[in-house]
Amino acid sequence: MERVPTVTESGAEAASSLGESDSAYVFDADTAVVELREGRYGATMSPRWRLPPGHLNGGYVLSVCVRALADALPLPDPLVVSAFFERAVLPGPAQLDVEVARTGRRLAFGEARLGQGGRELVRAVASFGDLSALEGPTVIGSAAPDLPPPEACFDIAEDRPDLGQSVANNVEVRYPKMPGWRQRQPSGEHSVELWLRFADGRDADVIALTGLVDMTVPQVFELGPRASSTIELTVHVRSRPAPGWLACRSVTNYICDGLHETDFEIWDSTGRLCAQSRQLALIT
Amino acid sequence: MERVPTVTESGAEAASSLGESDSAYVFDADTAVVELREGRYGATMSPRWRLPPGHLNGGYVLSVCVRALADALPLPDPLVVSAFFERAVLPGPAQLDVEVARTGRRLAFGEARLGQGGRELVRAVASFGDLSALEGPTVIGSAAPDLPPPEACFDIAEDRPDLGQSVANNVEVRYPKMPGWRQRQPSGEHSVELWLRFADGRDADVIALTGLVDMTVPQVFELGPRASSTIELTVHVRSRPAPGWLACRSVTNYICDGLHETDFEIWDSTGRLCAQSRQLALIT
Repeated sequence: MERVPTVTESGAEAASSLGESDSAYVFDADTAVVELREGRYGATMSPRWRLPPGHLNGGYVLSVCVRALADALPLPDPLVVSAFFERAVLPGPAQLDVEVARTGRRLAFGEARLGQGGRELVRAVASFGDLSALEGPTVIGSAAPDLPPPEACFDIAEDRPDLGQSVANNVEVRYPKMPGWRQRQPSGEHSVELWLRFADGRDADVIALTGLVDMTVPQVFELGPRASSTIELTVHVRSRPAPGWLACRSVTNYICDGLHETDFEIWDSTGRLCAQSRQLALIT
Repeated sequence: MERVPTVTESGAEAASSLGESDSAYVFDADTAVVELREGRYGATMSPRWRLPPGHLNGGYVLSVCVRALADALPLPDPLVVSAFFERAVLPGPAQLDVEVARTGRRLAFGEARLGQGGRELVRAVASFGDLSALEGPTVIGSAAPDLPPPEACFDIAEDRPDLGQSVANNVEVRYPKMPGWRQRQPSGEHSVELWLRFADGRDADVIALTGLVDMTVPQVFELGPRASSTIELTVHVRSRPAPGWLACRSVTNYICDGLHETDFEIWDSTGRLCAQSRQLALIT
């Protein structure tokens, strides 16, 4: 069911069109884009999505790109988006050049290039469609993550000193057991299942999914490395998520001379697969 | 070790620069590109890589894009390439517009747009690097495919009538048992392992890997559907393949309302992972 905006919310939308939304939710405020002229958008990249080295989380940056693409393309849902991370993105103003490559009846294709100070940093190509209009078979070959209830799981943030402005403050993560990397004792495990949601209670939607796939500690940390840079991230969106906690699975099977993939799945509270992602990253 | 071109081979290269190579190998002849002016390439898309509906195989089309990117970018190996298939590509002349997005010391980024008759059909973004210069750990969490020797496996082409001009004529595939789809009895199996090589004896290299990941019958055919169109294909290249048969694994875990992924791995004859791909496709 669509939410009908109240007058107050319309006001918030007008504010968000200035690039600094007063939305109650951090993700909405910080991914707001404003069309400056046809195909050119402005955004204010927020320090609230920093990673420890100081640059911004790739999932957050990708979501800003997807919001601009969603504005430019005539179909509602990102079905697949692929982003190449050429350089680190920093807090502050950013510009997005969005090009519509093709609009068809079922699929629309577009590209967003995000830059700061006139220099291109991230290039994202996407295909949008309408998930509610799909008509085809459903066959699920792997089980949803099998997790104890979130309240029976570990909250790694619980005993942690204040992280300052960090992506880790904006998502809540629950692990069935304490991750090894948390105690600097990598477990050697190639996969993990975990609960995930926004810390401020915002439920996920299809745009949020494109960011959430990249907002937890990469599983490669359980294999020894303690730093890794994403080269490319592809997200497939399979369904619009139901409200509530998201059950996730993260897997890194192969590290080859420092190059590794991270696969991530997101299942909603009804047990439905919502998103599947894969990234190629380089241990640094 | 680099091969040193002989005089004769240089002649072949000159011919290939006309877009119609006299290379002894089908793949090299049919993926040849010629730079017409800076950033603009020409290619002749060959009918030898048709699929049954008449348009060209996506892996073949991607390899043509990667050849143009390889010419334009200063680093030797495609590490990751993502292609969006906006429209079907047909045999005949094609143009590629190639843009270098960033060239760094370790990574270079570029984009190729392949069109026919002035209309864009495929958009591919890639990051290139130098696989021989990578220095990092190697951790392999899944075993290589466990296959009987190729000569003990089934050749599905053996008792088949002539396929005419088809991608299936350019690759040899060996299955450990006869696939269910071959007898119109889908097995319901989500994964398969198989042997793969070019039919004319050409060994795979990194550019060939970007095409080979998409040149066998998609595993989704074992789940019932008999036609599927790729929306997006991402290929990660992990190492330069050794000569010989390639051991492959193809998996489709999830079909959601007709949308499905196909994952593909290629391991070389020394048991080393060479490529990993994922595509999002729509059952048609």
